[in-house]
Parts: sequence; C-alpha cells; structure tokens
Amino acid sequence: MQSYEAALNRFKEAEHKIHSLSYSTSMLFWDASTGAPKSGADARSQAIGVLSGFQYQLLVNEQMNEDLNTLMANLDALEEIDRVLVKDIKKEYDKLTKIPMDDFQKYNMLISKSSMVWEDAKAKADFALFKPYLTEVIDYLLKFAEYRGYEGHPYNLYIGDYEDGMSVDQLNVFFDELRARIVPLLKKIALKNKHIDTDFLKKHYSKELQDKVSRELLGWMGFDLDKGQLKESVHPFTMGVDIDDVRLTTHYYEEDMASALFSTAHEGGHAIYEQNFDRKLQGTALAQGTSNGFHESQSRIFENNFCKSEAFLSYFLPKLKEVFPEQLETVTFDKFNEAINLVEPSLIRIEADELTYSLHIMLRYEIELGLIDGSIKVENLPDVWNQKVKDYLGITPPDDSKGVLQDVHWSEGLFGYFPTYALGSAYAAQLAHYMSKEIDVEGCLKNGNFKPLTKWLNQKVHQYGALKKPNELIEMITGERLNSKYYCDYLESKYTKLYGL
Amino acid sequence: MQSYEAALNRFKEAEHKIHSLSYSTSMLFWDASTGAPKSGADARSQAIGVLSGFQYQLLVNEQMNEDLNTLMANLDALEEIDRVLVKDIKKEYDKLTKIPMDDFQKYNMLISKSSMVWEDAKAKADFALFKPYLTEVIDYLLKFAEYRGYEGHPYNLYIGDYEDGMSVDQLNVFFDELRARIVPLLKKIALKNKHIDTDFLKKHYSKELQDKVSRELLGWMGFDLDKGQLKESVHPFTMGVDIDDVRLTTHYYEEDMASALFSTAHEGGHAIYEQNFDRKLQGTALAQGTSNGFHESQSRIFENNFCKSEAFLSYFLPKLKEVFPEQLETVTFDKFNEAINLVEPSLIRIEADELTYSLHIMLRYEIELGLIDGSIKVENLPDVWNQKVKDYLGITPPDDSKGVLQDVHWSEGLFGYFPTYALGSAYAAQLAHYMSKEIDVEGCLKNGNFKPLTKWLNQKVHQYGALKKPNELIEMITGERLNSKYYCDYLESKYTKLYGL
Repeated sequence: MQSYEAALNRFKEAEHKIHSLSYSTSMLFWDASTGAPKSGADARSQAIGVLSGFQYQLLVNEQMNEDLNTLMANLDALEEIDRVLVKDIKKEYDKLTKIPMDDFQKYNMLISKSSMVWEDAKAKADFALFKPYLTEVIDYLLKFAEYRGYEGHPYNLYIGDYEDGMSVDQLNVFFDELRARIVPLLKKIALKNKHIDTDFLKKHYSKELQDKVSRELLGWMGFDLDKGQLKESVHPFTMGVDIDDVRLTTHYYEEDMASALFSTAHEGGHAIYEQNFDRKLQGTALAQGTSNGFHESQSRIFENNFCKSEAFLSYFLPKLKEVFPEQLETVTFDKFNEAINLVEPSLIRIEADELTYSLHIMLRYEIELGLIDGSIKVENLPDVWNQKVKDYLGITPPDDSKGVLQDVHWSEGLFGYFPTYALGSAYAAQLAHYMSKEIDVEGCLKNGNFKPLTKWLNQKVHQYGALKKPNELIEMITGERLNSKYYCDYLESKYTKLYGL
Repeated sequence: MQSYEAALNRFKEAEHKIHSLSYSTSMLFWDASTGAPKSGADARSQAIGVLSGFQYQLLVNEQMNEDLNTLMANLDALEEIDRVLVKDIKKEYDKLTKIPMDDFQKYNMLISKSSMVWEDAKAKADFALFKPYLTEVIDYLLKFAEYRGYEGHPYNLYIGDYEDGMSVDQLNVFFDELRARIVPLLKKIALKNKHIDTDFLKKHYSKELQDKVSRELLGWMGFDLDKGQLKESVHPFTMGVDIDDVRLTTHYYEEDMASALFSTAHEGGHAIYEQNFDRKLQGTALAQGTSNGFHESQSRIFENNFCKSEAFLSYFLPKLKEVFPEQLETVTFDKFNEAINLVEPSLIRIEADELTYSLHIMLRYEIELGLIDGSIKVENLPDVWNQKVKDYLGITPPDDSKGVLQDVHWSEGLFGYFPTYALGSAYAAQLAHYMSKEIDVEGCLKNGNFKPLTKWLNQKVHQYGALKKPNELIEMITGERLNSKYYCDYLESKYTKLYGL
C-alpha cells in the first residue's frame, strides 16, 4: 500500500458522510419550501444547526488537515476524480478553517430562520420584518470576509465562491460591455413604440392545465420525471440531491400563463444538468454544476435560446392551443412570438424579458457592492432599490414585495450570486453559437425535437459535473474563454428582427 | 457546582443533538412517503445510514456511559424531566450497547430500502419481491435478540420496545379474554343475517371534497392545521417532529367515502396527542407518546368512540349532505349509522370494522410469534396468512396486496407493534368510560363539540408525553391498571343495540 492510500480512504469516507449530511440539509430546505408549516421553523433550524455542526467537524479536524496535506503532496498519483475532489475540499478546508465553528453554526441557523421570515415579509410586503435578519446576515458576511481575508474588494470573496476566478474588476468590465450594447438597443426598441398585445396571456389558465403542460415540456426537454419531482413553491428552484433524485419547483399564476411555463423551462435546464452527471461522480461533491454561471447557462439556454426561439414557439403554439383552445383561439404565430418575447421594463426579475434582465442583475450587483462596502445601509434599502429601479427601468414598485423583497437570495446569504445569472446568459449564447456549427438547432426546435440539443449538452457540459472547472470547460467546448460578444450578438440579432429595427 | 452538573450538561447537549438527528431522519421518511421519486432510494438510505451512525456515536461512547452512571447515582437530585429522560436514555443505552454499530447501521439502511421495495411489491401484488428483504429483517431481529438477551420468548423483547412491561404471557391472556367475548358476539351478529345497505358509501366521492371534509373534521377535533400538514400517502401515518410541526397523511379512495374520513379521524387522534405535549418537554425525547398502546388509544378514541358514535354521526350526516348532496340525498340517519358501523369480515385491517379489527391483530400476533420462533417460514407466509384469514374471517384474499403485503410494518422491522393496536382500543374504552363520569360526552358529540373531550384528553393524557409511563398514567387517570373489561363492555353494548340482539 502506498503511503497516501490510508489518507485517501479516510478522506473518501469523510467526504461520503459530508455528502450525506448535505443531502439531509437539502431535504429539510426542500420540505421547508414545499408546504411545511411555518411554526416548525425553530425545530428545523435547530436540526440544520446540528447537521451543519457535524459537517464542520468532519471537514475541519487535525486528521483531515494531515490527510489533505498528504494527498496534496501526492496529487499526481491520484486518479482524476480523486485529484479534483482533493483540490476542491482543500480549498473548502482553507476557507472554513478561518471561520470559528461557533460562528459557522450560528450563521447556518440564522439563514434558516431568515429565509422563513423573508417569505413572511414578502407575503406581507413588510420590509421591517426582514430588516434585522438581513442586517445580521451582512454583519456575518463582513466578519467572515475579515476571517478569510481577501484581495481588493471584500466582495471579490463572495463572487469567487460562486464563480471561480471572477472579480469586481472583471464584472465591472463585463457589465460595462453589456451596457454599451444593450442600452442603445433598448432605446431603439422604445422609440419604435410598437404595440404588442399580451392580453391573451393574462386570461384564466387553470393551475392544473399549466401543470400538465409544464410536465409535458419537461419531458420534451429530456428531464426524466420518474427520477425527479416537480412541485410548487414561492420562488422556483432546482435541487439535485442525487443523479437519481432531482427536484424542481415552479409557481403557477392563473392569470399569467407564460410565467410558470418559462420558469419551468428554466428550472428544467438546471434539472437536466443535475440528472446527467457521469455516474462515476455520483455521491461525491463533484456531482454538481461546475459553477453558478455554468449552471445558469443550462437554464438560460433552455428557457431563452431554445424555448423562446421563433422555431420552438412555432411548434409550441399549436400544442398549447390543444390544451387552452378557448384562450388561444384567435392567436396567430406572430402575435404569440411577439407577446412571449415582448421587451418591457418590469418589476420582477424572474418575469423580466431577456433584454431587460441584465439590468435587473446590474442593479442588484451595485446594491450588493454597496451593502458590503458600507456605502448603502440596510435601513435605506427600499428607497435605494426603488430609486435604481426608476433610474434603470423607469418604473416604481408599488410595494416592497414587488421590490426589494422579491428575491430569496439575500435572506439565504447569497451575496455574489446574482452576477452569475448574467454570466449564465453569456455562456448560454456562446454555447448555442458553437452548437449551431454542429447541429441544425433551428430545424430541431421547429419539430419540438430537443433530443440532439440535450444530448450535445449532456456530452459537452453535463457529464463533467464539477470535474472540469468553468474556464477549462468553456475552452474545451468552444476553443475560447467566456466572451460576452456572443450574448450581445444574439440579443441584437433577435430583437432587431422582432422589432423590425 | 454539584459533581453531577457537568455530566447533566453534556448529557443534555448530546440528547439535543440526537433529537435533531432523529428529526432529520423523520423528515427523510416523510419525504419518501409523500411523493419522492423511487429512484432516489439509494441516496436516501445512505443518508439515513450516516445519520443513524452519528446518532449511535452520540449515544454510545465512554463519556455517555460515565455520565449516565453519574446521573443514575444522582437521580434524586434531578428535576422530574431530567430524571425520566436519564432513565429512558439509560435503558436505550443498555439496549444499544449490545448491538455492534456496524449491524445497527446496516439494519437501518436495510429498513429504508425494504420499505420502498414493499411499496413496489404491494403495488404489483408480488410477494416474491419483498420476500428476501423480510427474511433479512427477521434475521436481524433474531440476531439482535441474541445480542440483547431476553427472558422467556424472544418476542417479549420486541413487545417491550413498544409497550413497557408487556409480555407474550400477558398478551395471550389479553387475546384470550377478547376472544371469549367477541367471537360469540360476532356469531350472534352473523346469525341475525341483517341486510345493511352500504352502496351509497361507494358512489363517486371526489378526492378534493373528501380532502375538504377531512380538514374540517380535523379542525372540529381540535387539530391545529397551521402547525401541521395533511398529505396523502400509500399507508396513512402521523409524524410529530415537533410540538409545532405535526404531520399526518390519509389515503383517498374516490369510490369509498368512509375510508379516508375515518382514517383521518384516526391519524388526527394521534396528531392531537403530538400537538399537546407540555412545552417543557419540547425538543426532548419525552415529547412523544408514552407508549404505542397509549398513542393508539388516542387515535381509536377519536376514530371509534367519538366519530363512529351514534351521537356524532347524527351531527355529521347533515354536514356531509351539504358537501355531497347528490350521493347522500336519500340516506336516513339509521341507514348511515348502520353502514358506518357495519360488521363484516373484510380483508384490509385499516378498513376493518371495530369488532373484527381485533381478529386482524390476533392473526398478525400469531404470525409474528411464529416467524420469530421459527414455526412459520417467510416463504410460506402468503399461504399461512390466507389460511388464517379464512379460519378467522371466512374469506380469502384475491392477491397478496390485499393479504400479507397490506401493511407497511414488517418492512420497517416493526415486530411487536401490532398488538399495541388492540391495547390501544382497550385503553380508549377505559378512558372513555371514565371521561363519561365527568363530561356529557354524548351531548357534546351530538353538537359536534369536541372541545371539552379534547381538553380532557389534553389534561389527562397529552400534556405528559412520555413523562408518565403507561401503567402510571392509566392508574393516575382511572385509578386502575389496563382492564379489557371496558373494551368488551363497550363493544357488546354498541353492537347489541345496532343489531337488535
């Protein structure tokens, strides 16, 4: 036996246990989001605290420290999966050892409570309920940044947690580029003052039938519902606890047919990623998306590049007419395509159109930066939010549930997460561009035939899970690093045609 | 600080963590039973294995051993809650230390898998699928009995796990008594050959409306749906993970209105018990029913003594007619009362009438004894089952899903559990008898007014959780030990009147 083998076995056993604890915590979150009584929040957050305590103990201890050092010194001798796993866990170890366990556990309990309170605050449109929790979350993030150390802006730390190698400087360049091309495009569209009828989307569409279509759509896309679950929650999300158990949620609005359908397409993209990791990665920390941006690229490519394309909508409309004959009777394809792809500044990020979407992200990015560097105070947040929404989108939220309280993220401490949504769209456009070189994407979508597209993504992206890191992966597939040009090209081309610019 | 205080603090902290792990495991079971994809069973059983491993480690270690010994030597100095908790955990410790951790963990993983397989086997009416799992479960139980040691019959060990102080000898007496009075009663009813029309119960009753009535009934009974959840599962069950988070399930049959309603009343009785423990017990192992028999007494008293009483049915029928006017239009009170309380040998235990119910239990008790002492082989189980059903009830199951596969219990290793159902009915009758001395039970039920009855149970039974043990509790309330006379009196009186004997 090699000197490192005992270390490798101990390491793998601990990693397996950590994975099972994280599985259990995920299930508690799933339960909390899909119908659990609110009154159970205390018991749940205590349980989550205990589970995260065990998780911490498994990761942070002298034996693990020694084993990781042994394995890091023998990386070349390890198989690829073990090698990447060791490097990832080592990074996690270094990150965590800088945070005292007591703080880590209290923070996890706070997060569990805070997201329940947020849900209540959102329902009541009462930011005051949420304010003390958000303040405490940010205090922890600042404290953790000091513990962990950072270069430049403390926010770099939090972006890096979701998108390896990303920084405030790079993001500023990224958003500057988008701004330079999308804002003028948006202005041109506004000047056009084109009237687009969306009334037919706001007729009554029963929840049951929307659910039926959502499931059908997931099936076309290639999601295996026998190895997953679709439920309803306040905020749609996807949770892959195992290759063979991938859950997603949507939220039905009976007076808005498009919302749930395209949110299902979005979450379905995430869910298909989670269902198609190589079996070799099952039960390890590599059975996950390689980064948040990459995960988002898979949801965005299905939601926008595929499902909102002219080609797919021409297939989809007749199917929808079968389910909703009365509501869609007089709707022509052009009318449908225009309504689905309508550009209109709106209040809710998850319902925003493709074009204004990145402005929603830019706004959040600026606010997160401000909250972290102290230039924005939590107590002023509703005002700051509303002002920015007015500045960028020209509209004002009627209350905080349609404003600063709309997203779950901050209640869960997810700072640095929002920018990855915009990165996701950019990856998606780049992937779609290269996919088109190999496959007749448009022809497939015209026939509702997702198979070749999903298969391409399975082979190029999904199977690798977190085995290949974002930069490595995008370069493997497209021969170049992330390039926002493809995203801007795609948007310009799509909306120039749609609005006859 | 007293010498035992450090031990007490360590003990309480460990107990708190054990409670949280058990909360988490319960949630995984809840998830598995209420819609989780079957394909996720492996990941789930691995997680359950890991959680139960931690639970074992927290309970079984040298520090805990020392602390328990210290605390057992200082019992008189402890407050009542701590004293009972220490004694209970000491008993659990002694039980577990005799089972090697590896076996304990493997057994828990087996159970998780086995109950999924059972569900599948039941759906397919294919005993062969389940056979190897049941065989393995029994092998473990026999192995564990040897590890743990027992007096007399190894089955004594397993009854004792659910009903403190019960034994094969006592159960034989118990069932002998019931047999002596119920079998003749049953014969008299059969000789009467009374025709009772139940066709109206088998009309189409939509799931949605049954669900609505079920929730209303739970509300009348005093279950707080804001601090709980009602869902559907294959086999109805109740799970109180916390005083503020109590879940129950039912199973709707659209062609059988009575099934879900009275199963909801049954689970509702369990659930009300779980919601009304004294807050002082919250988050400890004492926040549970004091025994299975006592827990069952609370479900039975609501299901049978209350909800199937003439008095309540006279209140309930007009309410049901409002919800199901077409189906119940021509149904008179007598017809309704007779149909709900029909005595008829049937195949499914959970749908059996009150009178034949104990025969279903007797049958299972005999089979369990036989499986444990080796006089019955698993491979012969369907034949043995069908023969006993024919002997006791005069009927034959058409397939194993309506026979030996009907109950989840054995797939979860719950041997010794069934007898507590019969004990529950006996406790219920005894409690109802003494309640009637203080409250006009019939008058309350005639007005659908459960409040005084539920309050009586809250005060006499529920608040104590597991703080008072079964023998102590029944004696506190009724001034005597469990006495099956009340149960037999109740059945004789009820059915003599119903059948005009």
